[in-house]
Amino acid sequence: MTGLKIAVIGGGSSYTPELLEGIINNQELLRVEELWLVDIEEGKQKLSIIEGLVKRMIQASGHSVKIIATFNRQEAIKGADYIITQFRVGQLKMRRYDEYIAIKHRVIGQETTGAGGFMKALRTIPVILDICNDIEQLAPEAWLLNFTNPAGIVTEAVLKHSDVKVIGLCNNPINYYKKFAAIYNVSMNDVSINFTGINHLLWLTELYIKGESRIKDVFHGCSDIYEAKNIPDFGWDLQFLRSLGAIPCGYHKYYYQSDQILQQQLEEFKRNETRADQVQKIERELFATYQNPNLIEKPKVLEQRGGAYYSEAAVHLMKSIELNTKEVHTLNVRNNGAISCLPINACIEVNCVVERHQVTPLQVGQVSPQIRGLLQHVKAYEELTVEAGVNGDKGVAHQALTSHPLIPSAEQAKTILKEMFFVNKEFLPQFKI
Amino acid sequence: MTGLKIAVIGGGSSYTPELLEGIINNQELLRVEELWLVDIEEGKQKLSIIEGLVKRMIQASGHSVKIIATFNRQEAIKGADYIITQFRVGQLKMRRYDEYIAIKHRVIGQETTGAGGFMKALRTIPVILDICNDIEQLAPEAWLLNFTNPAGIVTEAVLKHSDVKVIGLCNNPINYYKKFAAIYNVSMNDVSINFTGINHLLWLTELYIKGESRIKDVFHGCSDIYEAKNIPDFGWDLQFLRSLGAIPCGYHKYYYQSDQILQQQLEEFKRNETRADQVQKIERELFATYQNPNLIEKPKVLEQRGGAYYSEAAVHLMKSIELNTKEVHTLNVRNNGAISCLPINACIEVNCVVERHQVTPLQVGQVSPQIRGLLQHVKAYEELTVEAGVNGDKGVAHQALTSHPLIPSAEQAKTILKEMFFVNKEFLPQFKI
Amino acid sequence: MTGLKIAVIGGGSSYTPELLEGIINNQELLRVEELWLVDIEEGKQKLSIIEGLVKRMIQASGHSVKIIATFNRQEAIKGADYIITQFRVGQLKMRRYDEYIAIKHRVIGQETTGAGGFMKALRTIPVILDICNDIEQLAPEAWLLNFTNPAGIVTEAVLKHSDVKVIGLCNNPINYYKKFAAIYNVSMNDVSINFTGINHLLWLTELYIKGESRIKDVFHGCSDIYEAKNIPDFGWDLQFLRSLGAIPCGYHKYYYQSDQILQQQLEEFKRNETRADQVQKIERELFATYQNPNLIEKPKVLEQRGGAYYSEAAVHLMKSIELNTKEVHTLNVRNNGAISCLPINACIEVNCVVERHQVTPLQVGQVSPQIRGLLQHVKAYEELTVEAGVNGDKGVAHQALTSHPLIPSAEQAKTILKEMFFVNKEFLPQFKI
Amino acid sequence: MTGLKIAVIGGGSSYTPELLEGIINNQELLRVEELWLVDIEEGKQKLSIIEGLVKRMIQASGHSVKIIATFNRQEAIKGADYIITQFRVGQLKMRRYDEYIAIKHRVIGQETTGAGGFMKALRTIPVILDICNDIEQLAPEAWLLNFTNPAGIVTEAVLKHSDVKVIGLCNNPINYYKKFAAIYNVSMNDVSINFTGINHLLWLTELYIKGESRIKDVFHGCSDIYEAKNIPDFGWDLQFLRSLGAIPCGYHKYYYQSDQILQQQLEEFKRNETRADQVQKIERELFATYQNPNLIEKPKVLEQRGGAYYSEAAVHLMKSIELNTKEVHTLNVRNNGAISCLPINACIEVNCVVERHQVTPLQVGQVSPQIRGLLQHVKAYEELTVEAGVNGDKGVAHQALTSHPLIPSAEQAKTILKEMFFVNKEFLPQFKI
Repeated sequence: MTGLKIAVIGGGSSYTPELLEGIINNQELLRVEELWLVDIEEGKQKLSIIEGLVKRMIQASGHSVKIIATFNRQEAIKGADYIITQFRVGQLKMRRYDEYIAIKHRVIGQETTGAGGFMKALRTIPVILDICNDIEQLAPEAWLLNFTNPAGIVTEAVLKHSDVKVIGLCNNPINYYKKFAAIYNVSMNDVSINFTGINHLLWLTELYIKGESRIKDVFHGCSDIYEAKNIPDFGWDLQFLRSLGAIPCGYHKYYYQSDQILQQQLEEFKRNETRADQVQKIERELFATYQNPNLIEKPKVLEQRGGAYYSEAAVHLMKSIELNTKEVHTLNVRNNGAISCLPINACIEVNCVVERHQVTPLQVGQVSPQIRGLLQHVKAYEELTVEAGVNGDKGVAHQALTSHPLIPSAEQAKTILKEMFFVNKEFLPQFKI
Repeated sequence: MTGLKIAVIGGGSSYTPELLEGIINNQELLRVEELWLVDIEEGKQKLSIIEGLVKRMIQASGHSVKIIATFNRQEAIKGADYIITQFRVGQLKMRRYDEYIAIKHRVIGQETTGAGGFMKALRTIPVILDICNDIEQLAPEAWLLNFTNPAGIVTEAVLKHSDVKVIGLCNNPINYYKKFAAIYNVSMNDVSINFTGINHLLWLTELYIKGESRIKDVFHGCSDIYEAKNIPDFGWDLQFLRSLGAIPCGYHKYYYQSDQILQQQLEEFKRNETRADQVQKIERELFATYQNPNLIEKPKVLEQRGGAYYSEAAVHLMKSIELNTKEVHTLNVRNNGAISCLPINACIEVNCVVERHQVTPLQVGQVSPQIRGLLQHVKAYEELTVEAGVNGDKGVAHQALTSHPLIPSAEQAKTILKEMFFVNKEFLPQFKI
Repeated sequence: MTGLKIAVIGGGSSYTPELLEGIINNQELLRVEELWLVDIEEGKQKLSIIEGLVKRMIQASGHSVKIIATFNRQEAIKGADYIITQFRVGQLKMRRYDEYIAIKHRVIGQETTGAGGFMKALRTIPVILDICNDIEQLAPEAWLLNFTNPAGIVTEAVLKHSDVKVIGLCNNPINYYKKFAAIYNVSMNDVSINFTGINHLLWLTELYIKGESRIKDVFHGCSDIYEAKNIPDFGWDLQFLRSLGAIPCGYHKYYYQSDQILQQQLEEFKRNETRADQVQKIERELFATYQNPNLIEKPKVLEQRGGAYYSEAAVHLMKSIELNTKEVHTLNVRNNGAISCLPINACIEVNCVVERHQVTPLQVGQVSPQIRGLLQHVKAYEELTVEAGVNGDKGVAHQALTSHPLIPSAEQAKTILKEMFFVNKEFLPQFKI
Repeated sequence: MTGLKIAVIGGGSSYTPELLEGIINNQELLRVEELWLVDIEEGKQKLSIIEGLVKRMIQASGHSVKIIATFNRQEAIKGADYIITQFRVGQLKMRRYDEYIAIKHRVIGQETTGAGGFMKALRTIPVILDICNDIEQLAPEAWLLNFTNPAGIVTEAVLKHSDVKVIGLCNNPINYYKKFAAIYNVSMNDVSINFTGINHLLWLTELYIKGESRIKDVFHGCSDIYEAKNIPDFGWDLQFLRSLGAIPCGYHKYYYQSDQILQQQLEEFKRNETRADQVQKIERELFATYQNPNLIEKPKVLEQRGGAYYSEAAVHLMKSIELNTKEVHTLNVRNNGAISCLPINACIEVNCVVERHQVTPLQVGQVSPQIRGLLQHVKAYEELTVEAGVNGDKGVAHQALTSHPLIPSAEQAKTILKEMFFVNKEFLPQFKI
């Protein structure tokens, strides 16, 4: 095989057309030969719809990528150059439970943070490590690009418990570049951002446009910032941003505005319409659209789903690796001392230089106390979550959830844990429940 | 002068008889010659009552310590060997505001932590630094023993912004020794405790009785632990303690049981009877008792006030310094790397070796993630609080309070801050309000 | 002015034509408008020869760069975009003393390390800080590109004692890229090298050609390595390289082969022909050549002088900054934690990402003990040398030299220091000798 | 058994009577019941002489300690409370080789540092780990007190490669206390010394007499310092000590005065009379004396042997452990962050608090660059030596010796290694030679 073999785990996801668009647009440099879409039997119908759309998109593009939809994960992984993970254990049904149980107990219910993100991590860790086991056997030289949320925790589990070359990816950073490039009407390369933090808890500590510091434009309301569509937007108090000395990311609202968010979630809860419900509705519509045999490109409506530019991030990263460009990407990697106040073996999200053989974080150095306290607290929670997810120790799981800044007490954590474990039983083989 | 000169700032405090008892019991070794009780004019009446009682206690003891009550702080400090600080800026009246404003906004209102402790720190820092200025001029060789709460933050302010030789003291550690010695019926020297943390956020990571590890006795409910009288006691979930792998201190309840504590505080609030109210009542009773000209010893009732054995801690410490005993005390000192995950210049509370000329922390080393996250979060809050307290920057104050794990949002922090600054105006000269 | 203004301190150096060639070859992108060649009055004759050659080179190139030769440093610095320092305090005459005094006492005499490098540092530090003072006043936004040796120590002095944006540059790293690109017949971009260390004590811990690890080629003698022309070449013991797990740079021979080097230097010493003598001879020839009015390009013979590709390093760096390319260069910058076993504020030589506004080191992480011991030892020597060079404390100078691994005793250090200070008197204003 | 069981490995050593004296003087508190003297068959004669003397000493003392001389190490270790190691693998014969081979190649030949100490470490590590294996099986609760040199390296090997509770002991620190107590005519408790470093590379960074800093007395020649009898004494340059800001220990002379020491050793070498020869002579005399059936106490002449007060150090340490005194001793223990510039798992020599169950280093914190460079360099050498000693990798051994600051080149290291390995063959089972 002279071109690339890519395996997408969770290939039946509604995001796949987004990825396809990225591949098609870069096929001349990337030269993808085979694209394997892997899913589980329960996702048969979705996978088949995606397969159809994807094949139509390829055909329309005039490129000749071979598309294989399969339930056989190992065959897909064997000899692959890249494995992309975007699966969701327990699907949206379990996400709905995550949100409802949390909110019922008056704590924030969210896919990647708080009690919800915690349970998603526990469900995902055994599966990703199983996939890594396959990769170690069948494609030891492959790069694993992980999108599965909570991407930071899942990537940390892989970094600590496998030998797979993994990179955690999020569409958050690229959206900041896109947005600022648009605002200042410059190319993306003219935008420089110093990022500090971890996945979904990412501070922008400096912004340069063509080498000039412009973060104060944001602090004084003269420049807009990127706001993810899937997070409520109450606006930021500019005074607060100025004394913070940094721009928080969208997910920071769960911490800096947790009372407002909780209030809104409690109302959604009453209406039986939390984010999981909304997403389920969007998904139904999307798949209905995808089935249209005349559809031969990514439909516009997908952008509302929340993962804008995620394919661009992935495809650009693969291009950088393949062409050994030594370019800077913002990625989830092993800390190794880049953020000196976090553990050496933690997964962090920072600017990295990408080479074909390695991804190296740029040195961040000291972190201000405004950022440091929350960052260290959440990272300790993540560390415990990885430990619980791998070892299946319920005591550690209890400590992890209690450690989360959004959980008000050890007892509350215990109650939530009990209810969540009850409905998640089948997805937690590592725990002897 | 051949004996010691001790100056007590906040000499009119109801705690002073406790200290006196300690001095009397150790006078043969300590040889105190002059004890200066310093207070401000507003505390005239209390100071006079205390002066009377203290003189009667001395007389009854048969020792000859000279007692001087004064408003002249500088005269008291001049040439002193020890300065003991136990003053309360704004007195109980302001403590009451601290508690009520916090609870009104549905966050925990407490003297040393949360929004209450934060405001007490901002009121105290300018005063303690002023005192340190006096010490640098008038008694540069003196040791400052600081009891004023929040003792960790106040001591950190002194460590960072003066050259005074300071030790922060709390009665918490000694009570654990006392309690375990009683439970196991051994001498205090036979009890060894490994402490990790900061003032009022102190974990016991190991307990040895005569060299045998006994922490599991606590984990399995076979051994009781010390519980401060001034903190609600809902009991500890033993399963939680086991997976924590450490014994939390009483003040941990504000974090590990914050919903329960808040519930109770909301009820006290409704009854107009928070802790400040209770303490005011106790204080009135105490001073009524103290006035009794027949009283010549510390009255039993003082023990309910909350500072049990605080005098023993202070007097033993002074004895260790004077006699250069190289004994181990649990004290608030500069980290200097002893807890490697906290800043070098942070104030920590750990076991220390006391010599006449220096107090050196024992190495603690690595801290488990269960402990680390919360510890680092609160320490970052403390660091910001010291900065705000010294520089009078309202933005930093806002960041500090927002950083506190018990505060749900930046907006909530702003509202509370505004109300608190309004009533505290006269005590915050460093802020241009 | 729309183009760049560049000031070269030490403009009369024999290296200047090399730099010119680089500028000419990149003038289309760089757009240099004015090139100021600054020197001191003692260097009048050389400066004039260089000025002539440089003007002829420019004219021949067809570009229109304005060349100004001057003794007025401040005028040259005023408003400059780049200041390039390549001056030599005390010129080759003092270098000769450095070498002879060292070798006379049977220790290695060398321009950048050992007793010789030490004295050069002490002579240079007051001058570079004086230049920085000018830059702070007259061109605060300028980048200072420092080539003056010992480049690591001199750059560290600037980093610690001025606000100037400084980068230390050496031609060592680029030569490794060139050499490996030639050996493997690939483009320089296809060569990736992981560097760890400090200037002139630089280990190559990994070598990748098109993403494949090839360092073992070197370990097994299947690949050559770059050897600087100005350092004796006894060959490397491949067994030693294998257990070292890294490729040492040429300057490592002064440590790993110090007995052989010393032996050779003792013989050169007897013949009155140390490196300084050789260089003086080369210089005389070079300037004779430069005077030829028909010479309109860099003469081939300059390559023997030792600074091969130094202009390419400098010009590429300026291009990266100007065009904000975010490319990777190997540079001397503030550590900031990139090499975790060295002080935060040390100057290190590692891969960095270059942006217009900042240069950020890539994270290096843990260093093997084989490398760590020598690296930390030499860095501590450098730290003391900077301190002595700035504060003029002879005790610190004695400690610095004693700390150097090539100096056998405190007494030997004292003797050498005494003799060196005697002949260097006029160049050490910071010491009250 | 109600009293203690102590096993002395290397019981036939000439030092044993020293230890006995210590035990006898403290028997009332220590209550030793059995003292096992273990040696190997080759040491039969010495062991028998020691056994005789020791039994006479006990009898004369009126105490009733059971003395058992044996070749059965496991029987001796079984159930012991303390194992004291003072054995010498290869005996003085191999020490003689160590010294001669080193000096022959013009590098310092010494028992604990340089090439000599290195070979002694390689011989000792397999034996000590074998002993630890026995202890883990037969006396898992026992404390191992290691005196075997190089004590720092040997203790680090045990710390890294066994679960035994080990403390490395040296008589160096106690001698400083003794000497200063004598000079200032105070009790040992009135002397406080801040120690920084590792075994035989120990700096005194502060000296307090009754709480007053007196280190300047040493710096100005007003106070003498302890000088070990077994190290040449050329005196210290007081100017050097002042700028060092610390008092070096005797073994520092091998670094700070290495040319003078080497000169002296070369002369001893010519006379066939290095330290090993001197010690052999002393040993012969000692054992002749020991044989005298009328000798019932430690003979005065033993003090010249070099280990003055070593028994006092050991016996006091055992007393502190037994009685859980929480006293401060200067010991070789796991760093754990106490010296922040050294690896976490390195063995360091610092002040420690001794409890029955644990020995905890006091925090040292930052180290000045004067001390740091040499300390880090030698520690990296030690780390490599432990690795080579355990894994038997000749490449690592070569790196270790090359890393030593007293070795001038990798080639020199290789030559010395080759000769040393040749004569040490039988003692290096871990190396496949």
